[in-house]
Amino acid sequence: MSVTGALDFVASGVAAGIRRRDRKDLAIVRSLVPAVGTAMFTRNRVRAACLEIDAEHLGLAQPQAVVINSGVANAATGERGRIDALATAAEASRLLELETEQVLVLSTGVIGAHLPLHKLLPGLVPAVAALARHGGADAAEAIMTTDTRAKEALVDADGFRVGGMSKGSGMIHPDLATMLAIITTDYPLEPGEPAGFLAPAVGRTFNAISVDGEPSTNDCVVLLANGASGLARTAASDDTFAAALEAVCADLARQVVEDGEGMTVLAEITVSGASDDDQARAIARRIATSPLVKTALFGHDANWGRVLMAAGSAPGLDGRYAELDPDALRLSYNGTMVFDRGRALRVEPDVSGASCTIELDLGLGEGRAGYLTTDLSYDYVRINADYRT
Amino acid sequence: MSVTGALDFVASGVAAGIRRRDRKDLAIVRSLVPAVGTAMFTRNRVRAACLEIDAEHLGLAQPQAVVINSGVANAATGERGRIDALATAAEASRLLELETEQVLVLSTGVIGAHLPLHKLLPGLVPAVAALARHGGADAAEAIMTTDTRAKEALVDADGFRVGGMSKGSGMIHPDLATMLAIITTDYPLEPGEPAGFLAPAVGRTFNAISVDGEPSTNDCVVLLANGASGLARTAASDDTFAAALEAVCADLARQVVEDGEGMTVLAEITVSGASDDDQARAIARRIATSPLVKTALFGHDANWGRVLMAAGSAPGLDGRYAELDPDALRLSYNGTMVFDRGRALRVEPDVSGASCTIELDLGLGEGRAGYLTTDLSYDYVRINADYRT
Repeated sequence: MSVTGALDFVASGVAAGIRRRDRKDLAIVRSLVPAVGTAMFTRNRVRAACLEIDAEHLGLAQPQAVVINSGVANAATGERGRIDALATAAEASRLLELETEQVLVLSTGVIGAHLPLHKLLPGLVPAVAALARHGGADAAEAIMTTDTRAKEALVDADGFRVGGMSKGSGMIHPDLATMLAIITTDYPLEPGEPAGFLAPAVGRTFNAISVDGEPSTNDCVVLLANGASGLARTAASDDTFAAALEAVCADLARQVVEDGEGMTVLAEITVSGASDDDQARAIARRIATSPLVKTALFGHDANWGRVLMAAGSAPGLDGRYAELDPDALRLSYNGTMVFDRGRALRVEPDVSGASCTIELDLGLGEGRAGYLTTDLSYDYVRINADYRT
Repeated sequence: MSVTGALDFVASGVAAGIRRRDRKDLAIVRSLVPAVGTAMFTRNRVRAACLEIDAEHLGLAQPQAVVINSGVANAATGERGRIDALATAAEASRLLELETEQVLVLSTGVIGAHLPLHKLLPGLVPAVAALARHGGADAAEAIMTTDTRAKEALVDADGFRVGGMSKGSGMIHPDLATMLAIITTDYPLEPGEPAGFLAPAVGRTFNAISVDGEPSTNDCVVLLANGASGLARTAASDDTFAAALEAVCADLARQVVEDGEGMTVLAEITVSGASDDDQARAIARRIATSPLVKTALFGHDANWGRVLMAAGSAPGLDGRYAELDPDALRLSYNGTMVFDRGRALRVEPDVSGASCTIELDLGLGEGRAGYLTTDLSYDYVRINADYRT
C-alpha cells in the first residue's frame, strides 16, 4: 500500500496489451470521495500530448482520478496525440462515472508512437473493475517501463497519511523518457491549496535529482487530496502535512536515482554559502550533471579540479556564468576538505564506497541547495547506445 | 609552418622538464616587428591565474609574445598562482627585450598544482635561443598535453597570411582542462582592431564545438597581427582577412573535435528557422551536449526523439527553456527527414558512418547556428574515470 495508503483511495494495474503480453501496462488511481488536486509538468517545450490535455482539465475541474499507461509516451505526436489523450480521458470518465475533465491521463514509453487506442480503451474496463484498496502495488508495477523495481512510499502521520508511487530510472530505454509520480493524501485541503504545498516539496526533491541531466517530455507529479482523514486542520497540522509530503517526495525521488541507469555510485552534492538559494541550486545542478565529475565518481576519484571547473561554469544571469570568488571556495569529499580558499590540501579523501558526498562552500552568503546524482558508467553508455529494438 | 607562416613571426618549443623528461613542454611565439593583438578567455569563473595576468597586460600594452607551458594549468592556485604567472612574464620579457606587459602567459595541464618555476624560468633561456621561423612545429608540439596530434593551420591569402596552432581534445587527462589557440597574421591591423575580427570568428568556430560541454578553466585564443605583409588595406582586403581568420579558426576547431577524447563519430548539428541566431545557438549547443544524443551517436542510432527532447530543454530567457513550437519542427539525419511537423516519418536514415549531420528546422524565423560535436563512447568514460596518476 502506498498510493492507496491514504483513506478512500483505490488503484489498479492491469495488462492491456500495450506492451508485451502479460506485462501490466495500464494503471488507475482514484479517490472514492471528492478530492482536490494539482499537477506539475515537465517544462520541456516538447511536451507529451497528454500533458496538454491535463493542463486544460486542471483549469476546468478538480482531478478525481489518474489514468497512466506505459509503453507509449504519446509525445511528438501532434494533433492526433491530443485527440488520443482526450479519448482516453473521456472513456475512463464514462466508466468511472466522472466528468472527462476530472480525469488526468499520463503516458510513459516510446516517443513518437501513437497510443494504441484499440488496446488501451478496452483495457480500461478491467482496470476500472479491478480498482481496490489493495491495488496500489499493481498500479506501481504497471507504470514501470525499464525500471528495475517499483517505487512506493508512505508516511503515516498524526491523523492522516501521504502515500505515493513513481517511476523513472533516467531514460533507461533509449526511447523511454519519463519520471512520473502520483501522490495521494487524506489530509483535508481546499481547492487551489495543493499546488502551494506540492511546488516547494517538488523543488527540493524531484527537481533536485539527476541521472543524466535530461528533462523528459513526459515528466509529471500529481497530488490528490481527498480529506478522508476527517482531521481538523491547524497551522501545526499544515506544517506536519508539508513535511510528510516532502518526505514522500524525497523518498520516491531517491528511489528514482538509486534505480538510475548504469549507476554504481550515489552522490549527494551540497552547495552552501551562496548569495542565494537560486545560485546554490544552479551550481549544485551544474556539478551534478557534469560528465567529468560523473566519470570521476565512477572511477572513485576525488577529482576536485573538475568540481571547481563545473562550479565556475554554472548558468547565471544574462547568459553569463554564475558569479563566484575562486579564492573563497572550500570543497570537501566525504567530510575531508581538499581545497581551502585558493589552496590545495595534500590529502586523499576516501571515496571508495558506493556513495559519496561533495560539499562546496562558496563563502559568499547563506544560500544553500542539495542535489542527488549518479556516476556516469560504462553501463550508462551501453544502455543508451543500444539500438532501439 | 603554421603559427610562423605569417611574415616576421618566430616560435620555439623546448623540453624544460615541467612534464616528463625529454617531452617538449615550453613554447614561445613572438613577432619580430611591433604587433597588435588581443585574446579571448574562458568565461569560467574559476579562471587560471595566468589569464588574470594576461587580462591586465592587454589593458596596458600590445602583446608581442606569448609563452605557453604544458603540464601544469596554474588554475585554482590563488595569489601564489598570479605571482608565478607574473614572474614567468617578467623573466620572458627580460630575455626577449620586451616590457613585462607585452608578454602573455598561457598554461595547460593539471589543475591545482603550482608552476615549477625552478624548471620553467631556466627553460626560458633555451626557448628564447631557439626562436626561429621554422620553430612553429616545435611550438605546436610543446603545447600538447594528451592530444594525440599537433594542430596547425595556415591560410595563404592574397598578399598576407593567417596561421595558427591549437591544443585540446576535451579534458582528455582527468586533470587537463584546456583549449588553447595562438593565431598570427602579417595582415596590418591598428591597435584595438584585432578583437573586432577575432570575436565573430571565434563565435562561429571555437565557441561552436563541444567534446563534453565542459568550459575549462584555461581556455584562451590569442591573435597577434604584425602587418609585416606591408599590404595596403581596403574594405575588400578586410573581408578577405576576416574570412581567412575564420577559416583558420574553423580548421583548428575541427582538429580539436576530431581529436576529442574517445570520439568515434563526428556530428555536425545545424539548427535553422529559429527566431534569432542566439536561440539557434542555444538549441544547437543543447543537442550537441546531450548525453542521450551523444550515446545514440555512438550506437549509430538515428534516435530523433532524443534530439527533440534536447531541443525542447535548451536554456532560454528568465530561467525558462527556449521557446519553440513542437508541431513546427522538422528534423533530418544525413539529409533524410525523420520528423515533419508533428508527424514521425517511417524511414531509417543511414547513420552507419563516422560522421553524421543532424539538421533541425524550428519553422519560426531566419535564425541559424551550427555546432560540431562528438559521440559519447566507452572510451570517453574509460579515459575520464581513470585515476589521476
